[in-house]
Amino acid sequence: MVKIAILGYGTVGSGVVKVISENQALIDKKAGEEIRVKYVLDLRDFPGDPVQDILVHDYDTILNDSEVKVVVETMGGLNPAYDFTKAALLKGKSVCTSNKELVAAHGSEFLSIAREKQVNYLFEASCGGGIPIIRPLISSSTADEIDEVSGILNGTTNFILTEMAEKGSDFQDVLKEAQQLGYAEKNPEADVEGYDACRKIAILSSLAFGHTVHYEDIETEGITHISPEDIAFAKELNASVKLLASAYWEEVEGKRNYYAMVAPFLVAKGHPLCQVNGVFNAVFVHGNMVGDTLFYGSGAGSLPTASAVVGDVVDVVKHLGKTIYICWDPDRLSLESNKNAKRAFFVRVSSDKLKEAETHFRASKTLYLKSLPHEAGLVTAVMPEGEFMELVEKFGGVESYIRINH
Amino acid sequence: MVKIAILGYGTVGSGVVKVISENQALIDKKAGEEIRVKYVLDLRDFPGDPVQDILVHDYDTILNDSEVKVVVETMGGLNPAYDFTKAALLKGKSVCTSNKELVAAHGSEFLSIAREKQVNYLFEASCGGGIPIIRPLISSSTADEIDEVSGILNGTTNFILTEMAEKGSDFQDVLKEAQQLGYAEKNPEADVEGYDACRKIAILSSLAFGHTVHYEDIETEGITHISPEDIAFAKELNASVKLLASAYWEEVEGKRNYYAMVAPFLVAKGHPLCQVNGVFNAVFVHGNMVGDTLFYGSGAGSLPTASAVVGDVVDVVKHLGKTIYICWDPDRLSLESNKNAKRAFFVRVSSDKLKEAETHFRASKTLYLKSLPHEAGLVTAVMPEGEFMELVEKFGGVESYIRINH
Repeated sequence: MVKIAILGYGTVGSGVVKVISENQALIDKKAGEEIRVKYVLDLRDFPGDPVQDILVHDYDTILNDSEVKVVVETMGGLNPAYDFTKAALLKGKSVCTSNKELVAAHGSEFLSIAREKQVNYLFEASCGGGIPIIRPLISSSTADEIDEVSGILNGTTNFILTEMAEKGSDFQDVLKEAQQLGYAEKNPEADVEGYDACRKIAILSSLAFGHTVHYEDIETEGITHISPEDIAFAKELNASVKLLASAYWEEVEGKRNYYAMVAPFLVAKGHPLCQVNGVFNAVFVHGNMVGDTLFYGSGAGSLPTASAVVGDVVDVVKHLGKTIYICWDPDRLSLESNKNAKRAFFVRVSSDKLKEAETHFRASKTLYLKSLPHEAGLVTAVMPEGEFMELVEKFGGVESYIRINH
Repeated sequence: MVKIAILGYGTVGSGVVKVISENQALIDKKAGEEIRVKYVLDLRDFPGDPVQDILVHDYDTILNDSEVKVVVETMGGLNPAYDFTKAALLKGKSVCTSNKELVAAHGSEFLSIAREKQVNYLFEASCGGGIPIIRPLISSSTADEIDEVSGILNGTTNFILTEMAEKGSDFQDVLKEAQQLGYAEKNPEADVEGYDACRKIAILSSLAFGHTVHYEDIETEGITHISPEDIAFAKELNASVKLLASAYWEEVEGKRNYYAMVAPFLVAKGHPLCQVNGVFNAVFVHGNMVGDTLFYGSGAGSLPTASAVVGDVVDVVKHLGKTIYICWDPDRLSLESNKNAKRAFFVRVSSDKLKEAETHFRASKTLYLKSLPHEAGLVTAVMPEGEFMELVEKFGGVESYIRINH
């Protein structure tokens, strides 16, 4: 029997208790050992909840109990999760987590301690909720040079953009609806400004490229400026507006130039990410041998996320005494400025400025909408983003622009 | 250094040689060992090809070379692949394969020998080509009761159905085009009659449910009868016609009833399998905790399939001396007759019979197409398939029917 402790009895932590109790026989069979929750750590009490019997308020109880082999960290945030995780690993306990902030900030440090102590630090639930994506990156795509990982990694913003597209509503109205449905937080900044997706793409790209992509280095733009007009033009272009978190490299004269960004993009209908709607998430991975692959599922929610955490616990139990190899070096990957990234852009202008704009932006396509008679849209030539931004500045009266996914 | 041998230098076998040589440094790093091809077995000679230097015609050379730790079986077919695989495992060599026929027929037998000999039998490439699906089923979805696995598992038929939908062409015309493009074989029976997809869903459902689903038990229907008219009506219903290979269970009075089938289905636009087009494949997995997940990628082709094979080789090398646990018992799962499976059906009738048909099939929806003035379509009530078939028989003049995916 393997005893585990859960840090934090919130949305994910309580999901972990539920998954382990409801699928107990199956999980024990897959792990080859009985897995039982010995402690739940939380500052609060839960009178009447069965968990009350195993609730502790002092982390040392867990840390000093040599019977606890696995610590499940579902507290979120950097502190005290950082100290708790480090202490557990140093005590020779494996840690499984859903905490994207902590993994993005300290993942490679924890992996290195885990290797020293011959335990594991696993974090499948930190990106894409229940979608199996970390383990496929680590243990399936081992024959491929991965040159791109891009995803719809935030359910709140994808719900908002999907609703805006389906109902033609304003961002603010749909945000309110999402808050009422519990899909968006009262303070929605981390989601709508792209910070959440930024942490997740930092983790995924670090694993895909093998070196640390610092989340502070990733240019991040949210969706608050996306308007129903933008989305109407996107439809005319057979595309969806999606908040993409994207990282890729290109080889130029024998050197790999790495790029990463979080921003709204137009995604064309043929691309597998275009049809990912509502609160669902998906991760697109391109390898030099396997080509395009996509992993799709629930990006959040108590049980899907807990399912990923428990999958990690099972893997830890199957590998007691052995560290699962995860290729994520601590050296900081130097990202190119997105000014050098080449792409096309969608631009909206007032219709009287269209002729001028077509020449100015070297338009490859022009769009009119009956419903918006005073406006026009165009698709620019492919150009470095820096050049495009200068053109926008010079032009003056651009209504809006959105990057176009290649 | 770990030496491997490849059996069969065809499409996949030559891909394995290419993947290992082109991504050598990366693969060695991920495996933690140098992986080198010592032998290629083929009856033919390949003068001028670098592989000629390591080509052997006698399997015993490989079998008796204790330096060879991994045998890659990319011959296909049951014989001599069965004998070769068994002999390798009994000699204590791990086997990685892309051979769906052999895995479907003897997978659990080989897994049992591998366990005895503390080696591995891995077959990621046998289903969905380069899509990581076997490993996620084995090692990611361990916290979930999987109650459905359904996929578009054959690239040839998906290419044909996609082209028919996009161009409005006949099955026979598109088949010829697919043959010219190399997407369909001269004898296309295994693809268009669903036999290939049947082997793959037998493997996936055996892994998902933990017991052996025999491919002979799976009712299999191909796509040769699908007409442009069927597809036109499907579009009107906001659906695609897809060859689905599907397996699921339902609990009735405490007993699990298992169903499996390969057949064309109408898949509604909101379902993630609806938008999987061309030669791409995808597998939909539903778990009781994680909910919906989807795995998408190239279902065939030399390099994608080889990428999956080499991913298995890397996994074997990381687990030398240890058997990766794969839950696939030899006991034959008893499948319910599809006569008891409840679903709705799409039915085409001549327009003068529509009134009668609406009552007869308890229609929930009726469809007309301007382009087909002498016909009408309807969606039946949900009913057991057996009851529907009796209604079809009694009615007489049904033009065609297609099952509707739930």
